[in-house]
Amino acid sequence: MAFDQQLRIPGPTPVPHRVAAAGAQPMINHRGPVFKQLMITVLERLKNVFQTKNTILALTGSGTAAMEASVANLINPHDEVLVLAGGVFGQRWAKICRAFQSQVHVLEYPWGEGVDPQQVADFLRRHPQTAAVFATHNESSTGVLNDLAGIGAAAADFDALLIVDAVSSLGGADLKMDQWGIDVVCTASQKCLMAPPGLAFISFSQRAEQRMMEVSSPRFYLDLRIYMEWLAKHEPPFTPNIACFRAVAEALSMIEAEGLEQVFARHLLLRDMIRAGLRALNLPLLVDEKWASPTVTAVKPDFSDIGGFVADLRACGVELAGGQGPLSGKIFRIGHMGYASPLDMLVTLAAIESKLGCYGRAAAAAEQVWSEAQQAHGTLAEWRA
Amino acid sequence: MAFDQQLRIPGPTPVPHRVAAAGAQPMINHRGPVFKQLMITVLERLKNVFQTKNTILALTGSGTAAMEASVANLINPHDEVLVLAGGVFGQRWAKICRAFQSQVHVLEYPWGEGVDPQQVADFLRRHPQTAAVFATHNESSTGVLNDLAGIGAAAADFDALLIVDAVSSLGGADLKMDQWGIDVVCTASQKCLMAPPGLAFISFSQRAEQRMMEVSSPRFYLDLRIYMEWLAKHEPPFTPNIACFRAVAEALSMIEAEGLEQVFARHLLLRDMIRAGLRALNLPLLVDEKWASPTVTAVKPDFSDIGGFVADLRACGVELAGGQGPLSGKIFRIGHMGYASPLDMLVTLAAIESKLGCYGRAAAAAEQVWSEAQQAHGTLAEWRA
Repeated sequence: MAFDQQLRIPGPTPVPHRVAAAGAQPMINHRGPVFKQLMITVLERLKNVFQTKNTILALTGSGTAAMEASVANLINPHDEVLVLAGGVFGQRWAKICRAFQSQVHVLEYPWGEGVDPQQVADFLRRHPQTAAVFATHNESSTGVLNDLAGIGAAAADFDALLIVDAVSSLGGADLKMDQWGIDVVCTASQKCLMAPPGLAFISFSQRAEQRMMEVSSPRFYLDLRIYMEWLAKHEPPFTPNIACFRAVAEALSMIEAEGLEQVFARHLLLRDMIRAGLRALNLPLLVDEKWASPTVTAVKPDFSDIGGFVADLRACGVELAGGQGPLSGKIFRIGHMGYASPLDMLVTLAAIESKLGCYGRAAAAAEQVWSEAQQAHGTLAEWRA
Repeated sequence: MAFDQQLRIPGPTPVPHRVAAAGAQPMINHRGPVFKQLMITVLERLKNVFQTKNTILALTGSGTAAMEASVANLINPHDEVLVLAGGVFGQRWAKICRAFQSQVHVLEYPWGEGVDPQQVADFLRRHPQTAAVFATHNESSTGVLNDLAGIGAAAADFDALLIVDAVSSLGGADLKMDQWGIDVVCTASQKCLMAPPGLAFISFSQRAEQRMMEVSSPRFYLDLRIYMEWLAKHEPPFTPNIACFRAVAEALSMIEAEGLEQVFARHLLLRDMIRAGLRALNLPLLVDEKWASPTVTAVKPDFSDIGGFVADLRACGVELAGGQGPLSGKIFRIGHMGYASPLDMLVTLAAIESKLGCYGRAAAAAEQVWSEAQQAHGTLAEWRA
């Protein structure tokens, strides 16, 4: 029997039935009144999740489309930029900036740790002409959540725009765009927003909006000036991913019903359950408590055949992710974001401990974390009350 | 009661139930074996519809993303290009080429007619250094199907690449990519391919593939070299629109079951029914028989309040499209592509004739066309046999 997978990768994440059903409704005219209303309300409701008053735009594309839109719209050729890189997605910022011919300075930080905000401030003091700082909120190749509030504070005194990849964090980890002084936040539909892949979202400050008008890099499909022009008419410039808009609308209803604070608390609980379970199995965690991501956890086990281990788990119905780049073949990763519950963590740990012959050990540790959380705060359902 | 719309716009088009259901299946890992197999087979099966042996790539985006990918990957800044423009989508080629700083020559042809291939040949003789000719197969802003075989023959003796927007034709009108000597064909999921919007497809000749390696225009998300590198591993470089891949796979099964020739014949029948019905209502057609599109028909009525007319039809459950650009407020358009049947044409015409007080007149004319087709070829179900 081809059972549904327990999809425990750092995105795409499981899509709730009601979200998938919303996306499968009969097609509609993207220039008619029903879609206009849908688009405007989704972009408005997302402001709560972005914790911003800024404009949000939707691009039909992957998260990387929003990242490229940031570069193509905000960076002139030969501009100096600072990229903070401690994993594959930090490196992606550097690749995109180089593709657009900017002068890239890379502040590398160890894969498995977060960047030190003080180093960002030091760099900007020495390079006050820096046009932008590109940061990764949650580095999903390592499972590190960066101190974005600290980076925001470090960059606050400089002209450089702070541009953030929040693809695998927004809606799962606290991100106060306005309060932390972030100029651009990029995210996508298929992570904590619980919808299928296919829409990217980008929000930008007034300062970033002004910068757009002065940038000469070639762009059309990702030209945010065109999107803003059409937004004034409540329309998208190009045929949008209508199904995904409907899915995101439904997912937002679920997030709003749970409450954003509760969503964040649930992600922290899932993280703590997974980490406790893995520690009980003596599986080394790549990332220390200080930087541990609420959405994905990386394990660096002593055994060598990680590909075989991931394939074994897949055969049991649990889909994990391997490592990327230099961590390929060295780690596996467990996604725990979006539509993920404590029970999902228990079944994932149960499959892992079974495969390792440590019956019940990880589940026991995770159950204890869960139980303590319930004693302190009540059940998930009660947390809201 | 909010009945489903009769969606008669030139895309997005109605999504068959089984296609929508395929897209709503539980989410899967885009780096796991199930998706790899899905991606490779969809791209392989599409070759039948593209009528090509060339590589086909999928981009998560609108059709415009595939158009921009053609420009960004094949045109260097300051290259001379020829754009054939007789409507909004021809003009879009010029806009994209200008955004990428090429020297654009526009061969304008009347809105409502096709381009004369002889003029293309004449231009290329005078400008042998032209890097590419950008053509629109089906200009959906006017309902013109261009003579692409003729354009291909006209361009055959020159170095210029022939790059074609087939977004609103591929899978509805005959397009012999290899036989007609077309270097690049762009299309999207939400037109004749009967899936929701969110995937674009691009196919390119060996000659175009070589050109890509020599082009310096900045690109990353739409850098086809990256897609080809990953294709060799049977993977997409960025998280793809998985739901839409599944939808397209299901739609391809429907196209394969009907047979491509039969699909084209059905589109011609739908066109002829719509045109006969509109003529019976004395509604002037924008486009003569010679250029009449099999996928969309434009009407230029004598009455002035076209917006009101479209709104009236919407209130009856039939969703039509207005005009675009200089034709805004002057025409309305009826889409008849993809998952569209003779019965859909009859209900559309019935709603239009009702609104005009000409009860039964258009339906009668269309039914006669349909009946004659059945006498000549049998019912749609029999055509295949």
